[in-house]
Amino acid sequence: MSKRENFIKQFPTIVEDLSEALRAYNMPQEAIEWFTRSLNHNTPGGKLNRGLSVVDTYQILTGKAELSDEEYQKVALLGWCIELLQAYFLVADDMMDHSITRRGQPCWYKVEGVQDIAINDAFMLEAAIYYLLKKYFRSETYYVDLMELFHEVTFQTELGQLLDLITAPEDHVDLSKFSMDKHSFIVRFKTAYYSFYLPVALAMYVAGVTDPRDLKQAQDVLIPLGEYFQIQDDYLDCFGTPEQIGKIGTDIQDNKCSWLINKALEIVTPAQRALLDSNYGKKDDPEAEAKVKALFYELNLEKLYRDYEQNIANQLKEKIANVDESRGFRGQVLTEFLNKVYKRDK
Amino acid sequence: MSKRENFIKQFPTIVEDLSEALRAYNMPQEAIEWFTRSLNHNTPGGKLNRGLSVVDTYQILTGKAELSDEEYQKVALLGWCIELLQAYFLVADDMMDHSITRRGQPCWYKVEGVQDIAINDAFMLEAAIYYLLKKYFRSETYYVDLMELFHEVTFQTELGQLLDLITAPEDHVDLSKFSMDKHSFIVRFKTAYYSFYLPVALAMYVAGVTDPRDLKQAQDVLIPLGEYFQIQDDYLDCFGTPEQIGKIGTDIQDNKCSWLINKALEIVTPAQRALLDSNYGKKDDPEAEAKVKALFYELNLEKLYRDYEQNIANQLKEKIANVDESRGFRGQVLTEFLNKVYKRDK
Ligand SMILES: [Mg+2]
Ligand SMILES: [Mg+2]
Ligand SMILES: [Mg+2]
Ligand SMILES: [Mg+2]
Ligand SMILES: [Mg+2]
Ligand SMILES: [Mg+2]
Repeated sequence: MSKRENFIKQFPTIVEDLSEALRAYNMPQEAIEWFTRSLNHNTPGGKLNRGLSVVDTYQILTGKAELSDEEYQKVALLGWCIELLQAYFLVADDMMDHSITRRGQPCWYKVEGVQDIAINDAFMLEAAIYYLLKKYFRSETYYVDLMELFHEVTFQTELGQLLDLITAPEDHVDLSKFSMDKHSFIVRFKTAYYSFYLPVALAMYVAGVTDPRDLKQAQDVLIPLGEYFQIQDDYLDCFGTPEQIGKIGTDIQDNKCSWLINKALEIVTPAQRALLDSNYGKKDDPEAEAKVKALFYELNLEKLYRDYEQNIANQLKEKIANVDESRGFRGQVLTEFLNKVYKRDK
Repeated sequence: MSKRENFIKQFPTIVEDLSEALRAYNMPQEAIEWFTRSLNHNTPGGKLNRGLSVVDTYQILTGKAELSDEEYQKVALLGWCIELLQAYFLVADDMMDHSITRRGQPCWYKVEGVQDIAINDAFMLEAAIYYLLKKYFRSETYYVDLMELFHEVTFQTELGQLLDLITAPEDHVDLSKFSMDKHSFIVRFKTAYYSFYLPVALAMYVAGVTDPRDLKQAQDVLIPLGEYFQIQDDYLDCFGTPEQIGKIGTDIQDNKCSWLINKALEIVTPAQRALLDSNYGKKDDPEAEAKVKALFYELNLEKLYRDYEQNIANQLKEKIANVDESRGFRGQVLTEFLNKVYKRDK
């Protein structure tokens, strides 16, 4: 059985735990069914990289090739808590972005009969995390650390989301609001903390590698790595083939505060800037999009991206080479993450 | 200075604490201003009974007529955390109910430029609670208890909200979904835990009165008292004068799963039931509303409410009279709450 299949096999137990909690409150059956449907619709179905990383990281830190059932269950549970956190964010993000589909199925708020109730369903996906942490980790010395970590990363993600929403609204293009600094803040806060740092930090707590200096070593690589991952995503949205990215990029039409537009804004002439002002973020206007794209080629953003990529990969490799493993942290944890990102578009 | 004024005086410090947290993350100024605006729009402005109750309860439990500044600040901070929790729920509730105004001003999502961003703003109001708990209570032995209490009460409120949303949707009337049991679940979970039990339990933790038997004594009175409070609210919506309730009741037109309709459903003849099926929950139809109201009078629901009220008040008084004060809990805490509710419509 693949790692992913093994991980997915845990999910029904989690749904059952949560249903049991509702039954213990004497919640009417129809509401239990609604919550179960929301959990199943919104939580599995993605790549599950974040959740799987908790297990992988824990195995590297402990040096255990095999985990006992009980050990696996605990670490995988934390992986599922990240997936629940992601589900909470995505249900809301799809509403705020007016998206139609997610992971090949309708967005939850687009499902018949759901609509705005999805807001409360998002809340409940988050609440499920703390119910599960209490059930499985209450007696651990690091229980408070787990709760505080989820609280802080949740807040950070929401801050990134806020800055994204007010910097690049769908319906009002104003490129003077963009800047590379804001791009960096948005992607680090909206994506890197919960997708890159959180899985590793959770595994570190369970493995007992919890010196603040070690958490900092992890964060110092994983946050810029998460930023690099998102910049790569921004790059591929324009320069990748549809086969590579599994969809047709829409960042230009969607007024996204992407790395490419910010890099362009740094180097354009006034005439080129005027072209961007008139053509960026124009919904359903393929001609405007084509003009922006042509300018991106003209500005040689591909080359600038390659330079950035080489530079950041070298920096991160050097940081990893210098990791202090004396307290039990392992540079290999970070190498695994870097390899997944660095090879992604090759 | 009144108790309420004193309490409100604390709020700017809380906004400043949270702004400082964002500045420490290097969050751009415009996002700090956005969050500040959301905090100020959504958190004060109500009656603040929940927050004030934390202070009152703490003073009764400790027997202190005066609190030191430091002591007041800590207890009031927990009061403001309840108000933040309420703000989180209300921002979302107004979106789900498509409400227009709240506390005499536009609902947050109706404010120019906000719209769906209000979903993320609601998330951030909740996240603020855990930031503040960490800042002010991290070194207390009961820090975990505070976090768990907020987690559990949040989840309970969301469960009550879910059942309310799927039992009484605005746009689809089906009285067969209603029942007195569901009414009881909805009001206990949606209102009583966070409005009645939470303020008292928080004050108990700070006062060091934390035996599970004492928390249970509080809960055993405060949850039915919260239910009674909501039933009174349902009653006044139909039978109170506009002067008494400060608005014109709309529960009948809004298809609310109120105590009155559930009581009516228990005792109607088939012909009367048919009248309810055709006339309950008809938006913008004052004639339909008048027919339902006439039936409510005909069924003598006023008398049935008075019976319920006398009965529940007697039960609660008896429970309070039997409170075991040997571990430091005080029946007076509960008497204060009962007096506020019992005298409300007199
Ligand atoms: Mg989106
Ligand atoms: Mg978005
Ligand atoms: Mg993208
Ligand atoms: Mg409402
Ligand atoms: Mg509502
Ligand atoms: Mg009412």
